[in-house]
Amino acid sequence: MAHINLPEGLPGIRGPMAFRPETAKPLNQLAEVLLRSENSLTRGERELIATYVSSLNDCFFCQNAHGGIAQHYLQCDMSYIDAVKKDFQSTSISEKLKSLLAIAGSVQKGGKHVTPEQIAQAKFFGATDIEIHDTVLIAAAFCMFNRYVDGLGTWAPQDRNIYVARGPRRAEEGYINFDLYK
Amino acid sequence: MAHINLPEGLPGIRGPMAFRPETAKPLNQLAEVLLRSENSLTRGERELIATYVSSLNDCFFCQNAHGGIAQHYLQCDMSYIDAVKKDFQSTSISEKLKSLLAIAGSVQKGGKHVTPEQIAQAKFFGATDIEIHDTVLIAAAFCMFNRYVDGLGTWAPQDRNIYVARGPRRAEEGYINFDLYK
Repeated sequence: MAHINLPEGLPGIRGPMAFRPETAKPLNQLAEVLLRSENSLTRGERELIATYVSSLNDCFFCQNAHGGIAQHYLQCDMSYIDAVKKDFQSTSISEKLKSLLAIAGSVQKGGKHVTPEQIAQAKFFGATDIEIHDTVLIAAAFCMFNRYVDGLGTWAPQDRNIYVARGPRRAEEGYINFDLYK
Repeated sequence: MAHINLPEGLPGIRGPMAFRPETAKPLNQLAEVLLRSENSLTRGERELIATYVSSLNDCFFCQNAHGGIAQHYLQCDMSYIDAVKKDFQSTSISEKLKSLLAIAGSVQKGGKHVTPEQIAQAKFFGATDIEIHDTVLIAAAFCMFNRYVDGLGTWAPQDRNIYVARGPRRAEEGYINFDLYK
């Protein structure tokens, strides 16, 4: 049971968003800009950064909801997403994305963990300042979303196939104009 | 020097906000709703929660910028803000606010650190569901803001008196319609 009296039946962040639409609005606008708007990082890459940080924060709902979306964009199966979460260096993602995930992993620990060497590595593999900025902010934002979801003790479906099945719909609807109850 | 090429001379979060106005907009809207809009928690109490979490995250800029605003609202001096950061239980703040700061401290560690006992304690001292919700989200949001500021290696004035002097102006201008360069 959630720590406060949230609308029933809504999984993860959807309960608090229905409870407090005033804060849901900027939260969703932030997600829309970071994860879906025009960017040289693909939507799949950005959802993967969100998924990776959510797994480091051990947030079941976020890592599966965004993992399901990433999996749809990247046209892979969940075992590939799991391999990235477990040890991205050993996967076939680009060297640039590996260097950005390394930065995201440091941000998850705390902003000061990001090193000049990690930044130099990302730039060496072609990351732009905007891409580095957005990686840091996506990672930071999911340190917020994850804490929001778990700090209120929200409920989430435990069957991971549900998130995979919903990935395409979530990818299509985006973060602004969607029905919290569907 | 910041990790990416930010506009010069802007302290803390202001550099990244000038660099990327698309993400600055929802970030500022979130801060405005959480810290300034109509609420049974005073603006001073909410800025104090933000300051406390920023101090736990060791973010110099955020703990002093928001500490300066809190100090203005609460009409106290910086040593009182410092006492709250160091050991809020021994200060004269209300029992309700102490119970909310305890929740905020758990959120800073990670969402799952919030305990049913902490929630029960806050409710016992009169905290409403909205107040608990907003405390969790303020704490989570500052885990984002702090990582954003430090993860990009931004610069901040080291003289704490500057933040105290600017508190009244920051309190008045709010988080939506302000000039990043002033």
